[in-house]
Amino acid sequence: MNYEEKFLALGNEIPSEEPSVPEGCNFVLYRQVSNVLMLSGYGPFIGPTVPPEFTGKLGKELTTQQGYQAARLTAINLLLIVRQSIQTLNNVVHIIEVNGMVNCTPDFADQPTVINGCSDLLVSIFGDNGKHIRSAVGMNALAFNIAVEISISLLIRT
Amino acid sequence: MNYEEKFLALGNEIPSEEPSVPEGCNFVLYRQVSNVLMLSGYGPFIGPTVPPEFTGKLGKELTTQQGYQAARLTAINLLLIVRQSIQTLNNVVHIIEVNGMVNCTPDFADQPTVINGCSDLLVSIFGDNGKHIRSAVGMNALAFNIAVEISISLLIRT
Amino acid sequence: MNYEEKFLALGNEIPSEEPSVPEGCNFVLYRQVSNVLMLSGYGPFIGPTVPPEFTGKLGKELTTQQGYQAARLTAINLLLIVRQSIQTLNNVVHIIEVNGMVNCTPDFADQPTVINGCSDLLVSIFGDNGKHIRSAVGMNALAFNIAVEISISLLIRT
Repeated sequence: MNYEEKFLALGNEIPSEEPSVPEGCNFVLYRQVSNVLMLSGYGPFIGPTVPPEFTGKLGKELTTQQGYQAARLTAINLLLIVRQSIQTLNNVVHIIEVNGMVNCTPDFADQPTVINGCSDLLVSIFGDNGKHIRSAVGMNALAFNIAVEISISLLIRT
Repeated sequence: MNYEEKFLALGNEIPSEEPSVPEGCNFVLYRQVSNVLMLSGYGPFIGPTVPPEFTGKLGKELTTQQGYQAARLTAINLLLIVRQSIQTLNNVVHIIEVNGMVNCTPDFADQPTVINGCSDLLVSIFGDNGKHIRSAVGMNALAFNIAVEISISLLIRT
Repeated sequence: MNYEEKFLALGNEIPSEEPSVPEGCNFVLYRQVSNVLMLSGYGPFIGPTVPPEFTGKLGKELTTQQGYQAARLTAINLLLIVRQSIQTLNNVVHIIEVNGMVNCTPDFADQPTVINGCSDLLVSIFGDNGKHIRSAVGMNALAFNIAVEISISLLIRT
């Protein structure tokens, strides 16, 4: 059950730049309350930039497969944030919740397949402990026109 | 204070098929952390299908009254999920939160009346213990074009 | 670290009418679970009314600066709700989460600057203890056509 090894095996799928809060902003990427770690909503960034294939709306500029990959990259970023907080993914007990928000047109109705990109990545690392409650809904607009914004919470060892 | 009896008195309003996760999906319908039970977002399903009168957008295909009924059916499904987890509603202490998301047109502004369909059902079962904090907001699109998606959390006896 | 004094120094920025639940509605403005206080989503109300400059959509009727001010007023209302629950803001340990929802057009992409109106107000009162995890996303419609709806949770002394 070496979550950390499984994560690092993602190799160059892992962005080389860490997730961060834009300068001058008064929020943080994670907060811990008791043994629950909660994360800010995050997107498919590579460092401070968003790849063009993850910019835009599902049902318009982007395919469902691109949305899936955007959600996968977002999940990897979220795990980088978890590591910023608790150093090693081996201290994760289980994922609690995934709140998946998809930037899409009013007639796009496959938010679940898009957010599967996050869910599948989490389960590939944590096995059954990666399973989580989930919402997967459509937004008419997201910051910087990112394809998805996802927040998660986790139970951790303290 | 027999919540279970009050729920069962809903009779054939209760779908005969249990809520479930679509095959191959890596999420779960509920997660418990300490004495808090949290549920995935769910919709006005009857088993795996959505009645046509609960499919579409408020402000376009559906009336506010249909939206209210969709939220009521969703609440019943959510309580079926609670029973999957803790067997009997008599082990509910109180509802904590209702997160109500309404599939609607940009000019629809009566999300609260729609989500009242869920809130009213909860209070009809649990009395004052059914009261909850709430968000009731508009989404431009939901999975399978369902009218509402709602998630809840509850305090339970353990 | 007198949060209460800093709040009251906002003077006539503080609405003279308290936030309230519309008559006949089955929800509440706050719920406490252990030492976590959670609030319902709330908007830029002054008592029961919404100023015209905070009614409408970002990207259409409203400027980003008006959205920022709407989020600031909403934050003040949320702190009034906190005081309804725990009497004095001096019993706040730290803010946990801000869930910021912006009523906007599909091409509006500056939700973060709008929700900064809430985040900045919280940090002006609570300093580093006002920092929080955050989502800032776009909604196609909100109740009463309010510019923003925001919910927060806080850690409190009990």
